[in-house]
Amino acid sequence: MRTSIATVSLSGSLTEKLTAAARAGFDGVEIFENDLLASPLTPEEVRARCADLGLSIDLYQPMRDIEAVPADEFERNLRRAEHKFRLMERLGADTVLVCSSVSPLALDDDALAASQLRRLAERAHDAGIRVAYEALAWGRHVSTYDHAWRIVEAADHPALGTCLDSFHILARGSDPKGVEDIPGGKIFFLQLADAPLMAMDVLQWSRHYRCFPGQGGLDVAGLVGHVLRTGYDGPLSLEVFNDVFRQAEAGPTAVDALRSLLVLQEDAGVSAPPAPVVPTGIAFAELVTPDVEPVTELLEALGFARTARHRSKPVDLWQQGGARVLLNTGPAARRDGTRLAAVGLESPDPAGAAQRAEALLAPVLPRRRAPGDVELDAVAAPDGTELFFCATDRPGLPSWTSDFEAVEHRPPTGGLLHVDHLALTQPWHQFDEAALFHRSVLGLAAQESVDVADPYGLLRSRAVANDDGSVRIALGVGPAPTADEAGRAQHIAFATGDLVAAARRFRDAGGRLLPVPANYYDDLAAKYALPDADLEAYRELGILYDRDAGGAFRHCYTETVGRVFLELVQRDPGHRGYGAQNAPVRLAAQHGRRPVG
Amino acid sequence: MRTSIATVSLSGSLTEKLTAAARAGFDGVEIFENDLLASPLTPEEVRARCADLGLSIDLYQPMRDIEAVPADEFERNLRRAEHKFRLMERLGADTVLVCSSVSPLALDDDALAASQLRRLAERAHDAGIRVAYEALAWGRHVSTYDHAWRIVEAADHPALGTCLDSFHILARGSDPKGVEDIPGGKIFFLQLADAPLMAMDVLQWSRHYRCFPGQGGLDVAGLVGHVLRTGYDGPLSLEVFNDVFRQAEAGPTAVDALRSLLVLQEDAGVSAPPAPVVPTGIAFAELVTPDVEPVTELLEALGFARTARHRSKPVDLWQQGGARVLLNTGPAARRDGTRLAAVGLESPDPAGAAQRAEALLAPVLPRRRAPGDVELDAVAAPDGTELFFCATDRPGLPSWTSDFEAVEHRPPTGGLLHVDHLALTQPWHQFDEAALFHRSVLGLAAQESVDVADPYGLLRSRAVANDDGSVRIALGVGPAPTADEAGRAQHIAFATGDLVAAARRFRDAGGRLLPVPANYYDDLAAKYALPDADLEAYRELGILYDRDAGGAFRHCYTETVGRVFLELVQRDPGHRGYGAQNAPVRLAAQHGRRPVG
Repeated sequence: MRTSIATVSLSGSLTEKLTAAARAGFDGVEIFENDLLASPLTPEEVRARCADLGLSIDLYQPMRDIEAVPADEFERNLRRAEHKFRLMERLGADTVLVCSSVSPLALDDDALAASQLRRLAERAHDAGIRVAYEALAWGRHVSTYDHAWRIVEAADHPALGTCLDSFHILARGSDPKGVEDIPGGKIFFLQLADAPLMAMDVLQWSRHYRCFPGQGGLDVAGLVGHVLRTGYDGPLSLEVFNDVFRQAEAGPTAVDALRSLLVLQEDAGVSAPPAPVVPTGIAFAELVTPDVEPVTELLEALGFARTARHRSKPVDLWQQGGARVLLNTGPAARRDGTRLAAVGLESPDPAGAAQRAEALLAPVLPRRRAPGDVELDAVAAPDGTELFFCATDRPGLPSWTSDFEAVEHRPPTGGLLHVDHLALTQPWHQFDEAALFHRSVLGLAAQESVDVADPYGLLRSRAVANDDGSVRIALGVGPAPTADEAGRAQHIAFATGDLVAAARRFRDAGGRLLPVPANYYDDLAAKYALPDADLEAYRELGILYDRDAGGAFRHCYTETVGRVFLELVQRDPGHRGYGAQNAPVRLAAQHGRRPVG
Repeated sequence: MRTSIATVSLSGSLTEKLTAAARAGFDGVEIFENDLLASPLTPEEVRARCADLGLSIDLYQPMRDIEAVPADEFERNLRRAEHKFRLMERLGADTVLVCSSVSPLALDDDALAASQLRRLAERAHDAGIRVAYEALAWGRHVSTYDHAWRIVEAADHPALGTCLDSFHILARGSDPKGVEDIPGGKIFFLQLADAPLMAMDVLQWSRHYRCFPGQGGLDVAGLVGHVLRTGYDGPLSLEVFNDVFRQAEAGPTAVDALRSLLVLQEDAGVSAPPAPVVPTGIAFAELVTPDVEPVTELLEALGFARTARHRSKPVDLWQQGGARVLLNTGPAARRDGTRLAAVGLESPDPAGAAQRAEALLAPVLPRRRAPGDVELDAVAAPDGTELFFCATDRPGLPSWTSDFEAVEHRPPTGGLLHVDHLALTQPWHQFDEAALFHRSVLGLAAQESVDVADPYGLLRSRAVANDDGSVRIALGVGPAPTADEAGRAQHIAFATGDLVAAARRFRDAGGRLLPVPANYYDDLAAKYALPDADLEAYRELGILYDRDAGGAFRHCYTETVGRVFLELVQRDPGHRGYGAQNAPVRLAAQHGRRPVG
């Protein structure tokens, strides 16, 4: 289907918005009036710019407070509308959005609304323009889509149809099934937005918190299904008012936006991109570092062994059970200090996974490999992390391990089993995008977003995981975009069956565990009837504890190297959390360890 | 009255919070449990630190989900409480907050709640501790203060009282008069918070949007009045959960917090700081500049004349009618580029104004003056702007103009009458503080906050003014704390009786007006039936137009020098706005004028 986006959904000047929409691959735009007013481009220049960019102008919007008003007011409104029709001719836009009135002058009189909209449509028709009438969720007298449709039906003019908006319909809790009673030909436009489920005033909710379909909690795909069953064949158009998008760069936002429409079409059953290939494990986590010594010390103290070396690159494989860490000391490392740069996702079908990622607009990474190296498919996640789709020593598939040559080593000793989860810091503007990306591109399921109190601001965290928990990624974001953002920590958590033993071994091998305040353990004693010996061991080692109906979660942390620290986790099988309630204590302890300036 | 603040209201480690509270001048603190848990200080060390800082620990908080539960659950809760009582002994805290239960286990059984709270109070009493029971607005069965009080009354134990919280009471719309039915001796604690009026889920509202009294829309002073009439003599304590405060520096937040309590006590009639002295005009606006030429060119083109020079400092007085601009090329100018550094407020009683400012914790600025200079009182506004309380050639008062020596000059010619308003950019974390500061310290009235769409984010603006509009200050803030913040523009708006003539004169004198897109004028023509000649003149000169029931507002802008631009304004007497609906067009035009990198 054709895709479109309202210019209000993107930041910048009108020119920047149009360019971003076209580069992302949209077919058309809705021109938001205020964006035109603030632009130095004439309507003719906007029209030409859109034509050059291959964008149609699908809608001009909005006209407000037109209908159901006293006669003299309506004459003024018609005069205003005539101005806009002339403007639209110059723009080359043939459909205008009319929002249901919020004016205190508006009367609760459907017949008057219909007759005035009919008169408006007659004038529009003369100018070659169609009028799409939409119920705002906070319209004074008309606030539901079926009410707007009844008025359009009564007005009965070929140049008058209705505009449906998923936010206005779903935010009010209207039953969207009734959409199917509207003839498709009378649905002149379809605007789409999602929103997180919030109990708040619908106007504020709409103006500040809309998001792209799949990023919130509304059933936008279900609504699209109803609309398509009417025979509607206009564009799917995004109209998203969002305080964060207003500040974000238009380019990435536009790509994110188009991805949401691709996923939406898949969810609504009208397109079939390559099917998701859900990863079945973490093949490896790759650290790049300019300062290899503290990292190898950390890995050695945890009991990892350096088992192999890449044939053509300065990359070592460290291994322990199913946990594999690549340590890359190549040129990229010198740029940003020690960080978690890449993740190998164990994939049942690496090529298929890459095809889906590419179809959903994930940036495909160039293959930088030496002759003879295994061909690996990789894409970039929104935070820049490289995601490799790969196989580890599985029959019939090339294994990334073939690029490595075994080296002599002592056996691993730390009792670590595999990667429990990865925690990645997201760019502030792309927290919601990141969840949608991991859900749609990788086929992971997203958990609820949780707030975590850091001593210097509120963080948000949202986990994505596969069904059996063999792939878990916690996406985190800071309280606001600051220079500090790039410095925020990432971490790798390793699973163990006996955390006390693993932590003790680590400490005895010279590893330094993050110290946890004694007050925390006094509280733990008050909260849970833990055996004294356990509590004593936790206190001694800095082990944090959480419990829910699914079981217990025990975890402790190493000190931080560069941007990275490591976590040891003992998770009861039914526990799905990540120790969020302990995160404030961990964050305070980490702040306390920083050199105070 | 004694003042107190909950540690959760301030950012940082527990040590940082305590230090900030003490430095601001609070008498005591509520220790929020999570702050203690995350602190490396033992309870004894916290107690000693508070004693050193002169802070009492007025409350330990909160205990949750204690009451109205099945017997076995209650036994576990008692065990947990005993732990906390021992902790409080170590801390030296004698009052604990118990919040009404939100647990799904809680039963709707007031008699059970009362009997269990009584048992808790008995244990507390043995430990020398008092229990303050508070109704959370989202409590499972107990959500109103009168309900909580009925349970406390039924429990009837001397160690059990109630805690009142202005947010929980006022957010629910409860009638606070009933507070007076509670004996003052049974009100064990009073927590205070304001909040902006928002139609949203009360839990989210409380956790993220609370603010200090006087910064929101709740009648906190009214509530305090009711509480004091009961004979309550405990502390006034602030408990504010706010996402912005979590990120702000604790020091300024604590000062802001204490100021809010001082104003609250004045509003509630229990204290009488020096009365406000409302300024009666803008005596001068002072620009500092390292690059004097473009600024003098601007002032000359506007028709200002250089009428006098400071006797001892490199400061010139530029004048036109009642509009006076000081141009300071002293050492401070070299630091930050051209900016609006100080404002002279015409004051009926400069000394009295300064006394009030000092009493309300405004930082008093040192007087840097040469012998013989007039003594001027000045304080710093939250954004660092210096505010001088002064008199201009008024009998019986020293005039700031005495420090200036007239110089020969041509007569001013621009048709400008006086300063219409000043626009000052606020630090992101202190937008609400700034409005409270200007309201309480200067006695100005605050208008509603408005959102303004900049192409790169949503700005907020809030005006403060005196009754006759002779002092108007628009406080603005950007969308988020960024490095760009310091670069945001300030401006001075000058009033004229004939904007078209003034703008034309400026342009003819070589001044450059900010160009406004032609599309804006097409829209103006559609919106208002303006005479063609007016519209043509507006279009030619870049004049923006707004209108409401109070009349019209016409305005245009110069180009920006450093951080500063100037505005010319023709305001109908009844119009109270600042052209907010035109601000997006102005902002886009200003972005367009920046060199694109």
